[in-house]
This record gives sequence, structure tokens and C-alpha cells, in this order.
Amino acid sequence: MGLYDKFARLAREREQFQTSGINPFGTRIDEIYSATEGRIGDQHVILAGTNNYLGLTFNPQAIADGQAALAAQGTGTTGSRMANGSYGPHLALEQEIAAFFDRPTAIVFSTGYTANLGVISALADSSAVVLLDADSHASIYDACALGGAEIIRFRHNDAQDLERRMVRLGERARDAIIIVEGIYSMLGDVAPLAEIVDIKRRLGGYLIVDEAHSFGVLGEHGRGLAEAVGVEKDVDIIVGTFSKSLAAIGGFAVGGKDMEVLRYGSRPYIFTASPSPSSIASVRSSLRTIGQHPELREKLWHNANRLYQGLSELGYQLGAHISPVVPVIIGSKEEGLRFWRDLIAHGVYVNLVLPPAAPAGMTLLRCSVNAAHSDEQIDKIIQVFAQLKNF
Amino acid sequence: MGLYDKFARLAREREQFQTSGINPFGTRIDEIYSATEGRIGDQHVILAGTNNYLGLTFNPQAIADGQAALAAQGTGTTGSRMANGSYGPHLALEQEIAAFFDRPTAIVFSTGYTANLGVISALADSSAVVLLDADSHASIYDACALGGAEIIRFRHNDAQDLERRMVRLGERARDAIIIVEGIYSMLGDVAPLAEIVDIKRRLGGYLIVDEAHSFGVLGEHGRGLAEAVGVEKDVDIIVGTFSKSLAAIGGFAVGGKDMEVLRYGSRPYIFTASPSPSSIASVRSSLRTIGQHPELREKLWHNANRLYQGLSELGYQLGAHISPVVPVIIGSKEEGLRFWRDLIAHGVYVNLVLPPAAPAGMTLLRCSVNAAHSDEQIDKIIQVFAQLKNF
Repeated sequence: MGLYDKFARLAREREQFQTSGINPFGTRIDEIYSATEGRIGDQHVILAGTNNYLGLTFNPQAIADGQAALAAQGTGTTGSRMANGSYGPHLALEQEIAAFFDRPTAIVFSTGYTANLGVISALADSSAVVLLDADSHASIYDACALGGAEIIRFRHNDAQDLERRMVRLGERARDAIIIVEGIYSMLGDVAPLAEIVDIKRRLGGYLIVDEAHSFGVLGEHGRGLAEAVGVEKDVDIIVGTFSKSLAAIGGFAVGGKDMEVLRYGSRPYIFTASPSPSSIASVRSSLRTIGQHPELREKLWHNANRLYQGLSELGYQLGAHISPVVPVIIGSKEEGLRFWRDLIAHGVYVNLVLPPAAPAGMTLLRCSVNAAHSDEQIDKIIQVFAQLKNF
Repeated sequence: MGLYDKFARLAREREQFQTSGINPFGTRIDEIYSATEGRIGDQHVILAGTNNYLGLTFNPQAIADGQAALAAQGTGTTGSRMANGSYGPHLALEQEIAAFFDRPTAIVFSTGYTANLGVISALADSSAVVLLDADSHASIYDACALGGAEIIRFRHNDAQDLERRMVRLGERARDAIIIVEGIYSMLGDVAPLAEIVDIKRRLGGYLIVDEAHSFGVLGEHGRGLAEAVGVEKDVDIIVGTFSKSLAAIGGFAVGGKDMEVLRYGSRPYIFTASPSPSSIASVRSSLRTIGQHPELREKLWHNANRLYQGLSELGYQLGAHISPVVPVIIGSKEEGLRFWRDLIAHGVYVNLVLPPAAPAGMTLLRCSVNAAHSDEQIDKIIQVFAQLKNF
């Protein structure tokens, strides 16, 4: 048997997509001009398929701070957080994140995937029961698999189904870990967090909320869904990322003081090189920007509403909630691929998402807007979708 | 039961180490002055406990290239390699790594931990048998756990034990995956790769070599242990990292053309944000430096020999092989902690490593040298070890 034989079917399937035109699963963005524009091959495109929600990737202060950190602290730490990879700014960022969330403790990880892996795999060991929304991100599933926990999935965003499964657990519900996301990355819908917190208050359990796509996006201060719903005190751990609203790379968790023990008990934390000084510096800068400029969030939602409404009026089938993630649901993979390539040919880049990355067997043209998009750019996106509808 | 109750014993144990003095499991390096010097609290220290083997963290060209990438491409990609996170330079780096290794394919990951997780968890699924050196890095163990493979451990660096276990597998040996490391991170010893390749030639199986600590360090061109031993053709996949000799953050795998399928089949690859443009740029720069300056490797080995010989003459118990990693084996945890703090007080920073990070229940003062250390710095380290020996 060959080393890669198990992927033969997948490889054949994906090769079909590569025979002609741009490969949707390995698109090269040849040049990046700004938070909203780039070039793919010969085509100048509006970037409408990123996670750059506040449009801060070209934040001049974050760039300058990243550059200064490169000069002052070098290109990398060459060590884990636990050994020689915690520089002053790594700890300063942790304090700043903790302060931003008004929580005792924050821990910084090297990627968002690693943050989920690090927190959840440590807590969800073989003695644990985890109740997962069925549409949870791969990093959450992988974390539970690595930890060895018993996984009970409940129907996506269905608090009643969660409650039924909690009740069925009997006494064990009190120690169960419930994991949901603030905004789901593919459909852009939000968890029914008030109902879930109500269940937790009545039946017990611990609650982890992944605010990867909602940090900077929801809540009065941009702290995410838990802030927006007013239930932050009921959430035991919030996990987030630096590679979306904070426009860099890395991840974080915030929680109670007792969460500090994860620094000794979380293998993905202990055995990963720490974030580079330039990433830390640019994240610190963009975190300040988020705190000081709530109008970025307003602009983001203005754009989200504009795109959702425009595509909705064209008759496209969209996600259930208006959000910066606006998925256009397409009938088949083949149609999705054709449409996706046509969009690029017309100057609009979005994400083509197929199962299993897309939930429920759907094919999605995942559009996303950010605070840096102009009305003209949003209208151009809508206009191209209008044009392609008639084909 | 509390969420963190399972860590109570570990927390108490680690708290003892924090009551007075610097915490060895969360040392803050307050300032970094160069690849070899920094400040911890009020103490100016020689850094003799990093993975910065070629001393390139302050490589001026890598810093300038990282800064330019920040300005040109922004602080982050805000997307995965599979979606919007593959910029031109990400793919250029993959081509350059493939060329450096003279192999068809290279894949870039966001951390070294993720590279092992991404490659191994995809291949080592529940149908696979993996033969692991017992002292394998945590990322390799975690990858096997995530994949769900059957793990068979063989005694550290014992090719005979590997062979016995392969023979016992019978027919299954032909499809088994053998995983070893070029240089083991804690004891600095190298795998018996010629013997392992001989076993593979006779009994079959696939061979993955993690060259995290040997890339840039071993081999005529710095490609690692497989190059040094002359068996690169027998290695199916080499995994490596950007956070050691390449002085940044990220990881890579090189292999045959069929390895490309991991881009579709590896969840840690698919679901992680891609490396930041500045990391990619500085890695490309340092990769060129490694290719153009073999004298860095010579200097590194000069320093390794000097430190090993010096500490050996003082009567310290060291690792079995001379290497850039020079572990000083200490009798007890308490003695190790006291010694480690004394070293810092005398201006020398090394890594204190306790089980389970240290193998075989040992307590280690893991010293490491790099190409940027001067003879005077190496001699100062030896002198401090001499001074503290009499206490």
C-alpha cells in the first residue's frame, strides 16, 4: 500500500477542479494591494473572501510597530512560551487582552487552531464529556479527538437539542463542557447564547465560547457574542484568534485565574514556538485600535447589511443571519466552481467552500466584508452577482 | 468537580517552583539584545538556551525583508493556505525549500508543531501502525493520537529494538510508518539513521524524519541528518521548522510529488491561518543565508565542541553525542532549579527541563550554543559552570 493511497479518491476529486482555470483549494493571491484589493493572475480583484473583518491588515501603526519589533527583538524567539520564548511584549499582550475582556487571565498561543487545541485538548481528556455544536470548527473537533473526550454533538444552533442531551447525561451534565462559537465561520450565524447560558445555569456544566469570528465584530467593546448578549460572567473560557479582526497570526484564551494552570498542562502550548515579536507587536497595536475606534465596527456592519440586502434582493439564498460573513448557497459543486471562477474573472474574490468544510453538504460562495470596503466596492460585488445570475 | 481539578497536583508542584525567584516555566526575557544576549530582570545574561542554532534572529537582511513584507503585504493574511492565505511568497518559499532539498514537493505550515501534526495525523490514521522512538517530541505523539494510529514505541535510538518490533509486525511492517528525529531536542543525540534505513530496506515501511533540530546543523548543505548520512532517497518525508535555524516561526515538510495531496487531506494545514508575510520573507532570506554561508555551520560546531569539551573536563555528566544541544544532567529537580537560578544570577541563561519534557525521568540544564556565540561567551559559560560546581 502506498503512503498516500487513502487519499486517492480525494486526490482524483480535487484534480478535477484543477484541470482548467484557477484552483479554488490553492489559489495564489499574487499581489495584495490593500485590505480590500489584490491580484490573482492577470485579474485585479476586490477581496471579498477573507477574515480581515476590521480591515486592519494594512493598519499603518501595526505595520510600523511590527517593523520596530523585528529590528529590536529579531525575526523569531526560537523557543516555546514555557522556555525562552516569552519576551516582555508577549506577557504585556496577555495583560492587555485580559484587561480588554476584564478577566483575570489571558494566555497567548501561536495560532488560533493551536489556541483551541491547547485549551480544549487539555480540558477534554478521556474522563470528560463535551457537548459540541455539530457545525463546530475543525480545530474544536480535532482538540476533542486529541484530548480523548467523549463527544456528544447537538444540532447546529439548537438549544433545545442541547438541553435534551444534557438532561440525558444526568449527574454527568454538571461537569460537561459545552462548546459553541460566537459567529460560525461558514454560515455567519450566531449561537443562541442566552438560551445556552440558561441551560447551563439550570443543569450545570462549563461553557467555552470560540469568538474567532465575533471578536472585534460583536459587543459594545468588540469582545464578541458573550458581551453582546450580556452573559460574559457565565462563560468560563473565551477562545479567540489574532488572524481575523486583529489581522495578524496567533490565538488567545481568556478565563479565570485558575486557567493559568494550562501553561503547565497544555501540550500544544508547551511544545510550540512562541509568536514572533512582530506578530505580537502588530496585535498589540491593532488591539488598541479596536478599543479606540468603535466606528470600524459600525462601518463593518454597514457593509454587512449592504451586501446582505443587495444579494438578498437579487434572490440569492443566503445564511440565516445578517453578518460580515455572507454565504451564497449554490446548488452543486460544479456550479459553485464555475460561479467562483466567473466571479474572479469579473474582479471579485470570494471563498469557494465545499463539504466537509461547508456544513450540511452545502456548496457555498462565502463572501465576507470588512470595515475597509467602500460602498462602491460592495456595490461592485452586488453588481457582479447580478450579472452572473443571468448566465 | 472544577474545570481544572485534574491539574491540581501539577499546579501545586509547579507553584513550589514559583515561590521565590524566577519561574523556570515562564521566564520572562525582558529584553533581547542580540542572538546571544538578553536581560532577565536586572540580570544581563548570555543566552545559552535557545534553538537559534545559526544565530540568525538578528540577520539584518532577514529583518529588512520582514519589514518590507509588512509594508507591502500587511500584518497577516487572515486566511488559511487553502483559502485566501497563499500569497505569491508562500508558494515561492515552498519552491525554494523543495529546491534546497532537491525534492519535488514542499509544504509550508504555520508552526513546526503544526507541520508534524499536519503530516503525521493525516497519514497515521486508525488503520496505520507507527513505530516511534520513545523519546519523540510531543508534537509527534500528539499527531499520532490525533490521527488515531496504533503506536509502537521502540527504545530511544535502538535500531535493534526497532527491528525486533518490525519483525513482530509480520506483513504489516511493509506499510508501517517509522518516525525518528535528526537531533533529539533534549539530549542532543542523533538517530542511528543508517541502521534504520537498512531495516527499512529489508523489512519495508515508510520513513519520516523530523529534522527540526538538525536542519541547518547537519549535512554538507545543512539539509540535516539524512543528508549527513547519505540516505535522503530512503526518507519519504522530512519535516522541519522555521523556528530554529531559520530563526522565525512556521514549519515545512518535503517529500515526493504525491505528498501534495496533504493539502486536501491534512486538517491542521487546511484549518490554520497561513504564516504572516513577514515570517515568510524572513525565512526566505535566512534560507538563502544558510545556502550561502556554510561557515555558520562550522562556527556552530566549533562552539558545540568547545562547550562540550569544557563542561566535560569539569566532570559534568553530558549527553552521549557532541552537538549544539549540550544537556547537563542533574541529580534532582530541586538541585536543578537551584543551579538554574544560580546560572542566571551569574549571567548565563539555559533551559531547565524536567520530566515529562526531559526523557527517562532526568532533570536537565539544557545548554545550547549557536553560531553567533564568541569564544569568550562560550568560555564565560564554562567558567560559570566551573564556579558553581564547588557550591
